[in-house]
Amino acid sequence: MNSSDSLTPFFNPRGVVVIGVSHDPTKLGYGLARNLVQSGYQGAVHFVNPKGNTLLGFPVYPRVGAVPDPVDLAVLLVPPPAVPDSLRECGERGIRAAIIATGGFREAGPEGAALEDRCLEIAREYGMRLVGPNCIGLMDTHLPLDTTFLQPPMPPAGSLAFISHSGAICAAIGDWIKGQGIGFSHLISLGNQADVNETDVLAPVAADPHTRVITLYLEGIRDGRRFVEQARQVSRLKPIVALKVGRFESGKRAAASHTGALAGQETAFDAAFQKAGVLRASTTEEMFQWARALAWCPPPQGRRAVVLTNAGGPGVTAADALELNGLRLADLREDTVQALRALLPPAASLHNPIDMLASASAEQYAACLRTVLADPGVDSAMIIFPPPPASTAGTVAKAIIPVIQVADKPVVVVVMGERLIQEAVELFRAAHVPDYRFPEPAASALAALYRRAESLRELDEAPMLLQDVDQDAARRLLEGQAKGEFLSQEIANRLLKAYGISTLETVLATSVEQAVETAGQIGFPVVMKVASPDIPHKSDVGGVLLNLASPSEVAQGYQAVIQKAKAARPEARIEGVHLQRMLTAGSMPAGQDVIAGVVQDRQFGPVAMFGSGGVEVEGLKDVEFALAPLTRPEAERMLEKTWAGRKLKGFRSLPPADRQAALQALGRLAQLAADFPQLAEIEINPLRVLPEGQGPRGGQGAVAIDVRIKLQN
Amino acid sequence: MNSSDSLTPFFNPRGVVVIGVSHDPTKLGYGLARNLVQSGYQGAVHFVNPKGNTLLGFPVYPRVGAVPDPVDLAVLLVPPPAVPDSLRECGERGIRAAIIATGGFREAGPEGAALEDRCLEIAREYGMRLVGPNCIGLMDTHLPLDTTFLQPPMPPAGSLAFISHSGAICAAIGDWIKGQGIGFSHLISLGNQADVNETDVLAPVAADPHTRVITLYLEGIRDGRRFVEQARQVSRLKPIVALKVGRFESGKRAAASHTGALAGQETAFDAAFQKAGVLRASTTEEMFQWARALAWCPPPQGRRAVVLTNAGGPGVTAADALELNGLRLADLREDTVQALRALLPPAASLHNPIDMLASASAEQYAACLRTVLADPGVDSAMIIFPPPPASTAGTVAKAIIPVIQVADKPVVVVVMGERLIQEAVELFRAAHVPDYRFPEPAASALAALYRRAESLRELDEAPMLLQDVDQDAARRLLEGQAKGEFLSQEIANRLLKAYGISTLETVLATSVEQAVETAGQIGFPVVMKVASPDIPHKSDVGGVLLNLASPSEVAQGYQAVIQKAKAARPEARIEGVHLQRMLTAGSMPAGQDVIAGVVQDRQFGPVAMFGSGGVEVEGLKDVEFALAPLTRPEAERMLEKTWAGRKLKGFRSLPPADRQAALQALGRLAQLAADFPQLAEIEINPLRVLPEGQGPRGGQGAVAIDVRIKLQN
Repeated sequence: MNSSDSLTPFFNPRGVVVIGVSHDPTKLGYGLARNLVQSGYQGAVHFVNPKGNTLLGFPVYPRVGAVPDPVDLAVLLVPPPAVPDSLRECGERGIRAAIIATGGFREAGPEGAALEDRCLEIAREYGMRLVGPNCIGLMDTHLPLDTTFLQPPMPPAGSLAFISHSGAICAAIGDWIKGQGIGFSHLISLGNQADVNETDVLAPVAADPHTRVITLYLEGIRDGRRFVEQARQVSRLKPIVALKVGRFESGKRAAASHTGALAGQETAFDAAFQKAGVLRASTTEEMFQWARALAWCPPPQGRRAVVLTNAGGPGVTAADALELNGLRLADLREDTVQALRALLPPAASLHNPIDMLASASAEQYAACLRTVLADPGVDSAMIIFPPPPASTAGTVAKAIIPVIQVADKPVVVVVMGERLIQEAVELFRAAHVPDYRFPEPAASALAALYRRAESLRELDEAPMLLQDVDQDAARRLLEGQAKGEFLSQEIANRLLKAYGISTLETVLATSVEQAVETAGQIGFPVVMKVASPDIPHKSDVGGVLLNLASPSEVAQGYQAVIQKAKAARPEARIEGVHLQRMLTAGSMPAGQDVIAGVVQDRQFGPVAMFGSGGVEVEGLKDVEFALAPLTRPEAERMLEKTWAGRKLKGFRSLPPADRQAALQALGRLAQLAADFPQLAEIEINPLRVLPEGQGPRGGQGAVAIDVRIKLQN
Repeated sequence: MNSSDSLTPFFNPRGVVVIGVSHDPTKLGYGLARNLVQSGYQGAVHFVNPKGNTLLGFPVYPRVGAVPDPVDLAVLLVPPPAVPDSLRECGERGIRAAIIATGGFREAGPEGAALEDRCLEIAREYGMRLVGPNCIGLMDTHLPLDTTFLQPPMPPAGSLAFISHSGAICAAIGDWIKGQGIGFSHLISLGNQADVNETDVLAPVAADPHTRVITLYLEGIRDGRRFVEQARQVSRLKPIVALKVGRFESGKRAAASHTGALAGQETAFDAAFQKAGVLRASTTEEMFQWARALAWCPPPQGRRAVVLTNAGGPGVTAADALELNGLRLADLREDTVQALRALLPPAASLHNPIDMLASASAEQYAACLRTVLADPGVDSAMIIFPPPPASTAGTVAKAIIPVIQVADKPVVVVVMGERLIQEAVELFRAAHVPDYRFPEPAASALAALYRRAESLRELDEAPMLLQDVDQDAARRLLEGQAKGEFLSQEIANRLLKAYGISTLETVLATSVEQAVETAGQIGFPVVMKVASPDIPHKSDVGGVLLNLASPSEVAQGYQAVIQKAKAARPEARIEGVHLQRMLTAGSMPAGQDVIAGVVQDRQFGPVAMFGSGGVEVEGLKDVEFALAPLTRPEAERMLEKTWAGRKLKGFRSLPPADRQAALQALGRLAQLAADFPQLAEIEINPLRVLPEGQGPRGGQGAVAIDVRIKLQN
């Protein structure tokens, strides 16, 4: 039986027993019993309480052992110390799924944690799966089944599944949703997740045909890599929207590189969600505003949106919001404009946003909408109506709903107002047309639809698996290297070479004389860096000299570099200096310098970084992250989202650089980190991206000038 | 009679005449009459229609001339071509204020614009003030007076004034506000603003004691400088919140400098609002979420907020939202923690956000709130309750409202849910406690309160008026300079010197020989730049060479620079090269390079910019703007908000630079631009900020290395 099968009793039990029911209507144990009965659950309902008797027309058994068949799922609401025994009785009774609603476990301190561990042991012993403890339970509005003690009525049945780490948020959202015109298929409160966690429930919830969108309230993720894998599969079928809170809780990690310092937990979450096709919302309301559009609208083909309204102001507001959300105002085709002209008075504005004027009738709304949706240059539409002076909002709604329902493009409506729009709002909701009060959330929802469409395309992309890497050579290089230490410059360079990343010859010189001689061999000008395993950021101690053009400059430089390093870090082991050829074109450095790095995230594995390098990486924060290994669109996005990446195409006097080589190097670096999890941090700073089409090795135009690699402890 | 007095008839008319009333209830002319009567207006009500008769119990006069006293204000809703004559009749009748509700003027094209101009001429002829045309009119809920044709009922009376360029937004917000638990003092639809505009109505609206907050929906600003001046005065008394739309409408300006290219219309609006103490909201809902808190809460003393809740999830969400909005979680004093411990069960989390656990009673909410508000380290509070299992939301509301009402610190509440919270929501609204459904908008509102408090402090700051500037010398330098042209390098440098900004000696050399000789006089190494009035961005054409260390390098450099400039810009006048001493410390440049610039904005006058300089200014976008002249906090903010400014304090191997000198230079530059509006663009790039405490002139440690100044056309 695989993991998902073992969860079947939670989602489709033949019988449910509630342990710890109460006759007192003010107690949660009563609420639980009441909800189960009132939910209309079609399976067998059983209650357990040592006092026996009957409740709500059902017999109350003194103990679980006495409960007759069928019973697949137990819901426990007994005092914390009684939970282990109660769980054992469930196991003995042959029950293989239990929800522990009781609180007072890990969240309450070390004693509670020990109690929770005992519960888990017992569950394992009996092959039993657990939801909770410290949770509200599960709700399935279609089955139906309600194992919560939330105040009735149940949230309306609908197409959103809501999975939450917080029970309070479940309770709040379960009530709040009643005013939103959409309902839940599932409400799942996971509590402390002693056993079942957010990843486990994704597949079963997605398998339910009633579920169209999965929404997640997350305070963290248990097993990051499994989450990404599972969510990536599920989001191919159904959109997942997540709100991840606790952004500011976790401090920065201790890091040996810029990459490590910048790749905080939140950037790793961003990268993980991106990889998994999960849309990350920034507020609770936004999550559900997006979810409603995702549940009810087809995905758009592109970014081009049209705005149809009866007044200038809301149109301008909408245009702003669309642009701010990364969409564009569609340019209408000439025949579309002609058709609109025939439908509207001369003073109407036919330029998108289309202002039909205050006199616009319901028929004009419908005809104009039909016209713009037929334009192949339009990917989506936003219809806005402030209380229309010439008609009622309800009349407009009735006219346009049939047009929206046959459209293969997403249409969202903005019905502005409160009292004058109630009929329209109800009509739209009944017709599954997402309605918003203002243009801004409507634009945000259209943008989410676009990102979903984009994500669906990207989910089919495979990582850039480069075949010309020498994994064996890399493995041999890493054998016997000291844990928690930096690799030597030489080994680090060879590791990069094994993965096809060009490096600059780096020669160690341990004396003035040797430095001068080596520089002559390399060819002037040269770059000199202090060679020390104990100085990660060499320029911080004045340990880097550029453009040394003569033997005398090299000789003076050697003295200076060693002296400065010793002064700044008296305890550091200093081996001499590393010398490299300085890549120049005329008197300027050739090409463009960027940073490329990877850090192993505790949760999600290797996270790659790309952006503006140098020493001010943390200050400029011009960096972008993605989970390794990288697909080509992921690497492209990292370049597009950073100034360092964008300017590779050339900027003012800066000639275009070999972008393809930068993409390749980034992909190779990410692959190296994915292949060798023992590499804790890798940072190439700078990666010199040479001018387009040039380069030392057969057209490969990016060279790692400096690399630092640290091994895991 | 000053401008404000002339508006009195709009805000307190002794009698109102509606011209163009109708007996047909489907017509706007009926709605207008109905609203005026139903509003309960206490002055004289008159109607005009050529057909005469009576309407709603009032006589309908055939023409304005027949209307008896008193009549101060006319509302016109006649067809557009009839408006001028109607207006003239009003003038003849002695009416000095008119609202033209009719549309079909400037917004409808050139003919309408001509008609609008005619109306304005007639108004000027009679000394009459106009609101509109193409507007919805005015509403005063307290007077009361309703001159709109909006569908009843009127929005609830309250403390927000809403001033809008868009009539449709007025109609929508007027209805929407009915569900928000707050009301309007004034609703003002300005329409085409042929005469009265947003700036004109600020003072009269602020003078109304019922108005506590002014909200603005703006599609632009007519007279930017007057707006800033007026809004700055008004916002000392009452907070102003603005939503400015049309962000993406106006293209970039044609610009000769990085500053000009980056200082778009929107950055100028941001700078103007900042200077005027106006809080700029990014969405319509946000504007009113802020306004409600500003109307009902005292300003906080600082950023430190406390979160009080009965569950972990909402607390984490709140903590995230507070940090994202620039606030901080308060650290509670030890005695506060002790007091909380005495009030709560052992498992409660006493660390902010405070989780009182699901069992929290209404009494615990109240007692804990009282306790945390007494902590001097707490500046504001957010109370969150998901539907509390142990109590009802209404019970909690009743318990905490008295605590909130006596608090001198702002408290906002998050009541999560929909059906289970209605009583609580109504109680809070009645008690003027701002309620939100989720922690995110509540955090945004607290942050707005903080920014308001900060703004109030800053509004008292005077610009850094530096007395040691030589305005006369600057004036003489500018006499006779060609309009629309760049000043010569020499004049530009002298202009900066006149305002106390150090410049680097720049010597023109017109031949190789002269260049070599000059370099020797200046002292090696030198910087060489092509001298041409036609090449604004010299490095773009390879026209800048750094660190030329010998006569031979200078000679070679001369040839190279001239050649490259000629190749890139064959048409450019090339005068030779400018030579400067290269400021170095060892082999590295001394100090830090930043950009400081000013551009004259069409609307708002001089806008100053500060940030990361070099050639990649537009790419990095590490820049910040403020309206000149600058106060000290404004200059400080420009440094704090940019990486270029923050790193002046030192970063890694970069030693601290003379921040004070950078602030001074920025202030002087802004003052120069404010004193001489004919300076269209000034850009110092780079401004070299020398290491702390050093500098060529008596401790003034910032030197303009390169400056370009362009005059207005």
